[in-house]
Amino acid sequence: MMKKITSTALALFVTFSLYAQEKVDMAMMQKIRKEGLENSKVMDLAFDITDGNGPRLSGSPGLRKAQAWAVNKLKEWGLQNAHTEAWGTFGKGWQVDKYYAAQTTPFYRPIIAYPKAWTPGTNGPIKSQVILIKADTITDLAKYKGKLAGKIVMMDRSAPIRVNDKPELTRHSDQTLENMANAQMQATPQGGGNRPNPNAANNQMAMLMRAREVQAAMAAMLVEEKVGLILTQARNGSYGTLFSSNGASYALDAKPVAPELEVSPEDYLRIHRLLKAGRPVEIEADIKTSFYTEDPKGYNVIAEIPGTDKTLKDEIVMIGGHYDSWHAGTGATDNGAGAAVMMEVIRILKAIDYKPKRTIRIGLWGAEEQGLHGSRGYMLKHFGNPTTMELLPAHKNLSAYYNIDNGGGKIRGIYLQGNAGVKDIFKSWLEPFHDLGAKTVTISNTGGTDHQAFDALGLPGFQFIQDPMDYSTRTHHSNQDTYDRLNPEDLKQIATIVAAFVYNTSERQEKLPRKELPKPRPTNN
Amino acid sequence: MMKKITSTALALFVTFSLYAQEKVDMAMMQKIRKEGLENSKVMDLAFDITDGNGPRLSGSPGLRKAQAWAVNKLKEWGLQNAHTEAWGTFGKGWQVDKYYAAQTTPFYRPIIAYPKAWTPGTNGPIKSQVILIKADTITDLAKYKGKLAGKIVMMDRSAPIRVNDKPELTRHSDQTLENMANAQMQATPQGGGNRPNPNAANNQMAMLMRAREVQAAMAAMLVEEKVGLILTQARNGSYGTLFSSNGASYALDAKPVAPELEVSPEDYLRIHRLLKAGRPVEIEADIKTSFYTEDPKGYNVIAEIPGTDKTLKDEIVMIGGHYDSWHAGTGATDNGAGAAVMMEVIRILKAIDYKPKRTIRIGLWGAEEQGLHGSRGYMLKHFGNPTTMELLPAHKNLSAYYNIDNGGGKIRGIYLQGNAGVKDIFKSWLEPFHDLGAKTVTISNTGGTDHQAFDALGLPGFQFIQDPMDYSTRTHHSNQDTYDRLNPEDLKQIATIVAAFVYNTSERQEKLPRKELPKPRPTNN
Repeated sequence: MMKKITSTALALFVTFSLYAQEKVDMAMMQKIRKEGLENSKVMDLAFDITDGNGPRLSGSPGLRKAQAWAVNKLKEWGLQNAHTEAWGTFGKGWQVDKYYAAQTTPFYRPIIAYPKAWTPGTNGPIKSQVILIKADTITDLAKYKGKLAGKIVMMDRSAPIRVNDKPELTRHSDQTLENMANAQMQATPQGGGNRPNPNAANNQMAMLMRAREVQAAMAAMLVEEKVGLILTQARNGSYGTLFSSNGASYALDAKPVAPELEVSPEDYLRIHRLLKAGRPVEIEADIKTSFYTEDPKGYNVIAEIPGTDKTLKDEIVMIGGHYDSWHAGTGATDNGAGAAVMMEVIRILKAIDYKPKRTIRIGLWGAEEQGLHGSRGYMLKHFGNPTTMELLPAHKNLSAYYNIDNGGGKIRGIYLQGNAGVKDIFKSWLEPFHDLGAKTVTISNTGGTDHQAFDALGLPGFQFIQDPMDYSTRTHHSNQDTYDRLNPEDLKQIATIVAAFVYNTSERQEKLPRKELPKPRPTNN
Repeated sequence: MMKKITSTALALFVTFSLYAQEKVDMAMMQKIRKEGLENSKVMDLAFDITDGNGPRLSGSPGLRKAQAWAVNKLKEWGLQNAHTEAWGTFGKGWQVDKYYAAQTTPFYRPIIAYPKAWTPGTNGPIKSQVILIKADTITDLAKYKGKLAGKIVMMDRSAPIRVNDKPELTRHSDQTLENMANAQMQATPQGGGNRPNPNAANNQMAMLMRAREVQAAMAAMLVEEKVGLILTQARNGSYGTLFSSNGASYALDAKPVAPELEVSPEDYLRIHRLLKAGRPVEIEADIKTSFYTEDPKGYNVIAEIPGTDKTLKDEIVMIGGHYDSWHAGTGATDNGAGAAVMMEVIRILKAIDYKPKRTIRIGLWGAEEQGLHGSRGYMLKHFGNPTTMELLPAHKNLSAYYNIDNGGGKIRGIYLQGNAGVKDIFKSWLEPFHDLGAKTVTISNTGGTDHQAFDALGLPGFQFIQDPMDYSTRTHHSNQDTYDRLNPEDLKQIATIVAAFVYNTSERQEKLPRKELPKPRPTNN
């Protein structure tokens, strides 16, 4: 696409990139860098979101409190239409009010563990020998009938602990980035190649089905028998890091489940080894959790800097990231970092008194962790239905959406999500930030977060390439996802580059190029 | 030293090493390898010492229980004189009976922390806002008078968390081992070189003295004011790993101290950041610890396989390692590993029905962590006084002492402690184990554990070179020093090689060469 130069005066401050397509206003880039790198408030924002607020599990009082804080802060900065906006029905809120568990026999040791999300507490202190349940079939279960009321139980299952002989915290190497830059558009996978043996696959499926049946029967029995507490090994943690998950449906009409604790591998495996060796293990626990059903709706935080160009002000540049977190940490890298930098982007743009041509809108999404519910609900309400591809009028007005949700590592580039038309534009926009380590543009997709809700509607939604840091080894959904994991230099860099992308997107003559619209998905009726 | 060959038949099974000095009975090496590598029980022993028993803090009921278990096990294997033997007066025993602490404001979060050893509990549940104490001088302290009774307090001090961008678990590289092998005997450091500026040194000393005075005054005031609980940042941990230490003297007549909690860096720093930002933090805690004063003596576990050679049976080959641990883990790498492998050495030698020429004696030492008290006390009683160098008759009878206490990593070689006379002997003895990664002999010293008690008396006491694993990064004195950290293949290798060394030492015509006897140390009267 050709660019028109609108003013010779402006051209003095403009650099044409190698790609000869995009102008970049270097004076403005410098202004954004100065505000973002030298006057940053991003760590203050991250502090309030994590230390100041605590976990932000979907539907929880913690998330509501954090949402109210964000709306206030955005209003304070003079944003328009700052509000929480319901995206649909979520279900029950839940939080942990007390967690205590310790092994008392054969010796005393406090247990690093945490209630699975949406599980009930113990209804006061309990203490019992742990019963090791060995059940491969539903018939096996019968022998435990009448023996489990108030007891602490463990299934006869365990997984080894990861050996930590690689660095926990890493950054992308030049080689990794080069591989990303050289990636080709991936064809949709076709059949063929090494197909699994259909008989083997059927056998595996049958085994899986049987295991699931036993598991479901077990879960039902444990509730029926009024078991005191289930101990489950937490996935993949080590050295005190505990990865948490949910243990029950958050639907308003969800069936009751038994109290369940996700136990750090060291504590779990010790108890399991002792029980396997026939040694009695006694545990005491006191767990209190609360459910909240008064307002089952889920919310996003939305706010705007209105556009000022007569013809472009109805067009929109969006930024965002999810705001909800898991419950055992304070959701710092997942995704306090993303929320803090996106708020900081807004602060930077307000601080330099930028009057955007297009409207800039921030969305801090709810319930990403349960399936991108917040952003998907927002799509349905504002842009269209990705199943039927019935589009709403605003669909044509969105230029781009930028998302951060891959931890707190600095930006090394951007994923194009297969949108080849934006490649040279983004290359130009990254040029002023090569010195900050950001230069890679890859045609590849990345998944797992809210830009996909936009992408599913054919809207240009992007997620940046970030340094991996300790996201997958230590923090992603763990009790160690805390403020300590955030590196100020990285977060400043992210906010600065996103602010520049927002500026460029808002000022650009045209909206960003789009991919072909997806086709409506076939329905099953 | 020249060797005599006593039998041509034996020579068939004997390999002369490159060093042409030591015969190695390869058939016996093979037998030891088979028992040690294929029929190992070392993980069962480690399980009983760690999972089965729990922490073994010096003087604690846990250590006493583990000592009784070891004596029984050694008797079961047919050892002679298996007993606990007092090495002197230790002081108070202590253990944790309950640990619970959680932040309740601004949000609920359980705290990964542990009472400092030998500190009292909270005398029931307490709950208070945390008071941040800022006191650089004794005068500063005055303003807290009358305000601290029952309160939870934190000093205004913090240290950053280590960045984990190196592997947590490592093994020695060929290069490191080569450097060790090439090390020269170190001269005793002399004066000269870059001396510190004496004025600067005096200033630093004065500052240090002042800080210590304030600290001592603070500690006294906190007791006097009946403070509820002190929160202290645990050193160097991260991601849920908590390094523990002691918080008070274990002497019978020790002055009382205030309850003190060593808090994991993530939890500590969050509370500290909140307080520094002026945000109230409320904490609830319920900590119970017990003291034991009935028997203030400290004990070692001692047992023997009596020698069978008429002229050599009064001579001794000793093996050992300390048995006491810190209290927040189960003392697996420090030093359950050492105790388990040394017991396994004994088991291997009994299993192959070895009748040693010299007497083989195992010592599982107490109170190593407080200053090698167990092994030093044993020296005074059996071998002599390292200060006066008054020697007991058995001093001449000890051929060698072998120690394991550098975690659970396999043996890569041995430290000579400057005893050049054993270099070629040990090189020969390691030859059959080159395939297991053990071949480095270094003239260097290594310190920090019980072989030093022997070395101080001029007795040949040795510690092996072991792979570092995650000992210094994660397990050494931490809550994560658990059975999970022990690698069966490593422990089997250690036990096998030590058993071979014991066999060789016991069979050798002569006792091992010694260094020159140390001189009596000047006393201060």
